Amino acid sequence: MNFTLTEEQKDLQARTRAFITEKIIPYENDPRVTAHGPTNDLRHELVGLARLAGLLTPHASRELGGLALSHIDKAIVFEEAGYSTLGPTAMNIHAPDEGNIHLMEIVATEAQKERWLRPQVEGLTRSCFAMTEPSPGAGADPSMMNTMAVKDGDDYVINGMKWFITGGDGANYVIIMAKLEDGSATMFLSDMDRPGIKVVRSMDSMDSCFVGGHVVMEFKDVRIPATDVLGELGKGFKYAQIRLAPARLTHCMRWLGQARRAHDIAVDYASKREAFGRILGKHEGVGFMLADNDMDIMTARLHIWHTAWLLDQGQSCNFESSRAKVVCSEAEWRVIDRCVQVLGGQGVTGEKILSRIFMDMRGFRIYDGPSEVHRWSMARKIIEAGVRS
Amino acid sequence: MNFTLTEEQKDLQARTRAFITEKIIPYENDPRVTAHGPTNDLRHELVGLARLAGLLTPHASRELGGLALSHIDKAIVFEEAGYSTLGPTAMNIHAPDEGNIHLMEIVATEAQKERWLRPQVEGLTRSCFAMTEPSPGAGADPSMMNTMAVKDGDDYVINGMKWFITGGDGANYVIIMAKLEDGSATMFLSDMDRPGIKVVRSMDSMDSCFVGGHVVMEFKDVRIPATDVLGELGKGFKYAQIRLAPARLTHCMRWLGQARRAHDIAVDYASKREAFGRILGKHEGVGFMLADNDMDIMTARLHIWHTAWLLDQGQSCNFESSRAKVVCSEAEWRVIDRCVQVLGGQGVTGEKILSRIFMDMRGFRIYDGPSEVHRWSMARKIIEAGVRS
Amino acid sequence: MNFTLTEEQKDLQARTRAFITEKIIPYENDPRVTAHGPTNDLRHELVGLARLAGLLTPHASRELGGLALSHIDKAIVFEEAGYSTLGPTAMNIHAPDEGNIHLMEIVATEAQKERWLRPQVEGLTRSCFAMTEPSPGAGADPSMMNTMAVKDGDDYVINGMKWFITGGDGANYVIIMAKLEDGSATMFLSDMDRPGIKVVRSMDSMDSCFVGGHVVMEFKDVRIPATDVLGELGKGFKYAQIRLAPARLTHCMRWLGQARRAHDIAVDYASKREAFGRILGKHEGVGFMLADNDMDIMTARLHIWHTAWLLDQGQSCNFESSRAKVVCSEAEWRVIDRCVQVLGGQGVTGEKILSRIFMDMRGFRIYDGPSEVHRWSMARKIIEAGVRS
Amino acid sequence: MNFTLTEEQKDLQARTRAFITEKIIPYENDPRVTAHGPTNDLRHELVGLARLAGLLTPHASRELGGLALSHIDKAIVFEEAGYSTLGPTAMNIHAPDEGNIHLMEIVATEAQKERWLRPQVEGLTRSCFAMTEPSPGAGADPSMMNTMAVKDGDDYVINGMKWFITGGDGANYVIIMAKLEDGSATMFLSDMDRPGIKVVRSMDSMDSCFVGGHVVMEFKDVRIPATDVLGELGKGFKYAQIRLAPARLTHCMRWLGQARRAHDIAVDYASKREAFGRILGKHEGVGFMLADNDMDIMTARLHIWHTAWLLDQGQSCNFESSRAKVVCSEAEWRVIDRCVQVLGGQGVTGEKILSRIFMDMRGFRIYDGPSEVHRWSMARKIIEAGVRS
Repeated sequence: MNFTLTEEQKDLQARTRAFITEKIIPYENDPRVTAHGPTNDLRHELVGLARLAGLLTPHASRELGGLALSHIDKAIVFEEAGYSTLGPTAMNIHAPDEGNIHLMEIVATEAQKERWLRPQVEGLTRSCFAMTEPSPGAGADPSMMNTMAVKDGDDYVINGMKWFITGGDGANYVIIMAKLEDGSATMFLSDMDRPGIKVVRSMDSMDSCFVGGHVVMEFKDVRIPATDVLGELGKGFKYAQIRLAPARLTHCMRWLGQARRAHDIAVDYASKREAFGRILGKHEGVGFMLADNDMDIMTARLHIWHTAWLLDQGQSCNFESSRAKVVCSEAEWRVIDRCVQVLGGQGVTGEKILSRIFMDMRGFRIYDGPSEVHRWSMARKIIEAGVRS
Repeated sequence: MNFTLTEEQKDLQARTRAFITEKIIPYENDPRVTAHGPTNDLRHELVGLARLAGLLTPHASRELGGLALSHIDKAIVFEEAGYSTLGPTAMNIHAPDEGNIHLMEIVATEAQKERWLRPQVEGLTRSCFAMTEPSPGAGADPSMMNTMAVKDGDDYVINGMKWFITGGDGANYVIIMAKLEDGSATMFLSDMDRPGIKVVRSMDSMDSCFVGGHVVMEFKDVRIPATDVLGELGKGFKYAQIRLAPARLTHCMRWLGQARRAHDIAVDYASKREAFGRILGKHEGVGFMLADNDMDIMTARLHIWHTAWLLDQGQSCNFESSRAKVVCSEAEWRVIDRCVQVLGGQGVTGEKILSRIFMDMRGFRIYDGPSEVHRWSMARKIIEAGVRS
Repeated sequence: MNFTLTEEQKDLQARTRAFITEKIIPYENDPRVTAHGPTNDLRHELVGLARLAGLLTPHASRELGGLALSHIDKAIVFEEAGYSTLGPTAMNIHAPDEGNIHLMEIVATEAQKERWLRPQVEGLTRSCFAMTEPSPGAGADPSMMNTMAVKDGDDYVINGMKWFITGGDGANYVIIMAKLEDGSATMFLSDMDRPGIKVVRSMDSMDSCFVGGHVVMEFKDVRIPATDVLGELGKGFKYAQIRLAPARLTHCMRWLGQARRAHDIAVDYASKREAFGRILGKHEGVGFMLADNDMDIMTARLHIWHTAWLLDQGQSCNFESSRAKVVCSEAEWRVIDRCVQVLGGQGVTGEKILSRIFMDMRGFRIYDGPSEVHRWSMARKIIEAGVRS
Repeated sequence: MNFTLTEEQKDLQARTRAFITEKIIPYENDPRVTAHGPTNDLRHELVGLARLAGLLTPHASRELGGLALSHIDKAIVFEEAGYSTLGPTAMNIHAPDEGNIHLMEIVATEAQKERWLRPQVEGLTRSCFAMTEPSPGAGADPSMMNTMAVKDGDDYVINGMKWFITGGDGANYVIIMAKLEDGSATMFLSDMDRPGIKVVRSMDSMDSCFVGGHVVMEFKDVRIPATDVLGELGKGFKYAQIRLAPARLTHCMRWLGQARRAHDIAVDYASKREAFGRILGKHEGVGFMLADNDMDIMTARLHIWHTAWLLDQGQSCNFESSRAKVVCSEAEWRVIDRCVQVLGGQGVTGEKILSRIFMDMRGFRIYDGPSEVHRWSMARKIIEAGVRS
């Protein structure tokens, strides 16, 4: 057992840290960060900086221009990127693009990669992933999917309604999950400007960190040629799992960076602000919160490292990625909640970036499977499959 | 011992409930609810409805046109008012006006009441309370106050900086807390349009429920005649306590209404939405959250009732109002957090009002004394003064 | 609404408090408190003291020699009794006798009362309640009952195995819950020395506060005349509910007394013991625990009072007694756990009585329905029956 | 980074696991496990089995007959040993001997090692560590030490009172911590049968897992030659730190084994016992507890591994061992508490070993520094020394 970082990892960590601190944090109050996320324009500016720094899309394969990061490498780099609310956007490693790139690398044909993946890795385009549906469709339970893809000659015709489609506004292409007539699920690729695809509206959400926000999207008689099926027919749920286990973990990594950022701000504040005769941090009531933050941060990091290492060993990690997702989303949430409390009035207002992190992060206990679904899934594996740590 | 409501209380409860449901909730998506709170215009419209319903400023004395509610009465009525995010604004019982009206009734001269209080009770004007200061001034620790009031002839000249002044933008008058040269604190009354008073800027905050938002306010050579001192010189901190103990409790009441609203929405959702083969509410993972909500709601209500009753007996309730504030702010927070979780994606977006309640309520664990200050204060009384429940 | 105690209640409270402090606490280290509870001999001595003090079996009817306490009265008195680990035994208000007396008053025939209840109220005899069975029988789910009662002439012949029968060792009579051939459940009364009833063994348990401990009990061809059926045939589960709702609440009351006792010991210790330059209680880390204790104690008390009042109004309170049980058992547990922590080494050893309270109280989150069963039951009522606080 | 175990580690893990399961667990209900711990006689029998299995005192150096385990090795082996309540006793790696052996290896002279350490490593003798004192002496705050060592010729004469001295009854030698006249602290070695050393009494404690229990020990004019000073004069607190950081971590390891054992029992029970129509584990209310157990177990293990690895790198790990101690003691406690809850009545009685683990483990949140002292210490380092994870 060994917790040492390689020289390459240390170098990448240091370079990312410097890049985020020097180049990206200064943009955090840019007015182009809107209630529905950074604008495409701001995104392009930030992506340009990452490209210059050699830190753009680092998880993509070397063939496509990335750094071919292992999962452990990602754990190191994505935490650093997450230190700024804009870091993952700048480095092109934010949801949903990060996960889509990962999935496309594994499943897409060469032609599909050239058409959709290469420009995306270069930071020129964006994508979205259309799976979740309004009631009574697929929410936390994907088996309830209502969007249908019906074979018609060489094409598939898709009809359905999706919502909470992150990045949907202004995306260049979309991965659509739909049910075939036999009840199995399949993924389809499409440019967003194809007839029948409509962004109905942007949804107001607490978070404001995703370019393109979250949208309601309608698919009305969308005709997609069979060549644009992603992977094999009927393997939609399998691919969703391939995408999800690592995607969950990269969320854990990025939010860990945010939690660390919040903690640093809280420690700084508690070291200076006085009340009742001493600096806040010397009141045990505050100091204990800082100690708990440290525990939660390290707990999240250790679970991330461990699960990333398992993924690097080629394990599927369904159980472990559920566990890491619950542990991290809850530990990181406790951190930001405590930091808001330490800063008091400055925690709930725009005086510091904490309130934005707080609002951005709340959704993480819900998306990619709410804590309750993961606990249920873990319990089933413990009881039925004898999984034991 | 007796938990029965009087007929008058039941009638008031029923009337308020109907008023809120029928008249006020329909306004919740009105575009005049801005990021800095409902506009003055919207407020006037809502206040007009409450006046028509005979429910305006019900806590004020009958002399001034109110219903002279006891603290227990308030517990009943304010909970109902809080059921809508706009209810307390409509009924003129929101912070800071509610507490200011209470304080003015007790301390102001007849002339001061005629000039400032009567139009406020009639819902024509609004006020703010200028106490909190930026570092290194008075935050959670009021003894660190830096704003000075210097005697000059028959006037006092005030200089200082305040922030987090709720309702400051568009208020008609302000109660200013300042230090005299002898170090004691005094309250001053002033119209907001007096020379030297300047609203520097609105602060971006998570909440959007307070008319007038939260502002930074500058006092520069503000000259106030001695006749506009509120109460006696040097009694500022004492009056702040008179204002605070009940004001804390009315926060508990209003937010209890919000928590109940959130719970009702969550129960409704969990009764309809299905996943994994049954409605959400029949999954124990969700059902337990609903049971916990019920416990927390009833816990908050019981503490409110008990402390209100003690206040009605004429007790000062410093200890009990601290206790109720911590218990309620934390219990009510757990409720809204669970409701967001139950609703999943719809909990963190504007699809339902939950996300707004969530963002509105976070500050409650901080203002009127953060949980940590109240726990510290309670501990001191337990250890030093032998207070024991 | 009114939280005032009557003069009678205040008098009873004061008398009980004095009795417990002066007469009962001195017995707490008596060697007759064994690992399986106080001996019958010690019990008789303590009961004698309560008889002298006019505080024996105060919840029984006046006809039988009690004080006919209302539920609210019990809330006051039983909390005081619970202040000593031996108080409820002395006053004859401990489980299972307290609940059995309550049930017998409501359901038993006059002849049954004369034979079994009168001497029990007089403190001369003890009883037990035989419901719970080893797997695969009735545990938390009473519908799984396996003990059978078969009609044979004018008698019923009972066969089955019960365990966790509190007070079983040395009890004078037993209430047996058994299934009839039609699947319904019925209660039977029997002296313990009847042929076929056998105390198989005492179970080692963490608690040591119940006279007679907890035993495994075998019923082998136990022949019981039809005149000894308790109440009507087939109403066993209904009577269990009649017994349980108040019985749960009296547990909450007694343990509240224990929690208060623990808190007083912790406050006393934290007021004297120094570490790191000040008394423990002035360290926020300890002081906050004391403040949290106070909140939890008052929360438990308020739920007890409210539910007791509802019971006094004649409501069945299934929902509210579940809620009170979960709230109190968990709040009171947090109190004793914190007190152990405050006392450190003295909390986990016999130097103070805390470790005994800790071990005694753990079971309370389990018996009379584990927290999980009550949360499930509450959730069902919220979802299906629209119960809302 | 790498979580792979070496072949040697895997072999040791497997051998320990088999040894504990096959040889030691069968002894758990041996009557020689008394309320004050296993008897010396039982200990000798168990130690003999470990010697046969080649698993005795594995952390000692090879010179002395051990396996020279690294800290990471210990993490693997001690967790397995902890799977039985008697495992650490059998393998001679329980507190306080384990820590004393570690300290003696580093600090003792060759002569001292031959006299006291060698027979101890061979499992022939036992030791205790006399530091903690009754109020107003050294408790959580070691600087309050009252036991004095006064130079007299070539000897030191020690007077003082110690308590909570684990293993004191029947120990062969003792390490005494005492203050010199200059206020510094020094450690002394002494056989227990030296005149003036008296075991005053055994303390009743919740736990029953330590051979020799916990005792009150009096030192009255105990004359110790200067050659029996352990290490250098005045370095007592420094050595205590050398002893404590790893000793804390080995507690975390052993209790992790106990937590895993409890979890396995709970999973087994929840897989078989039915209630309300399905096995317990398929009720989410129970299943979620099992999932949470898994998270807590893995969290504890990861912190142990990480801190052990840092210790192996030669770092002092004061901060990290505090963190691991709090995280593990609290996570492991949550596990056992949930397991008790899952088993219901069988969790609080001797039917299963859970109640014993529960009572044994409560002290762990207190000894080797209560959670509050570690949080305080961590906060100080975060605020004053800029420590950041």
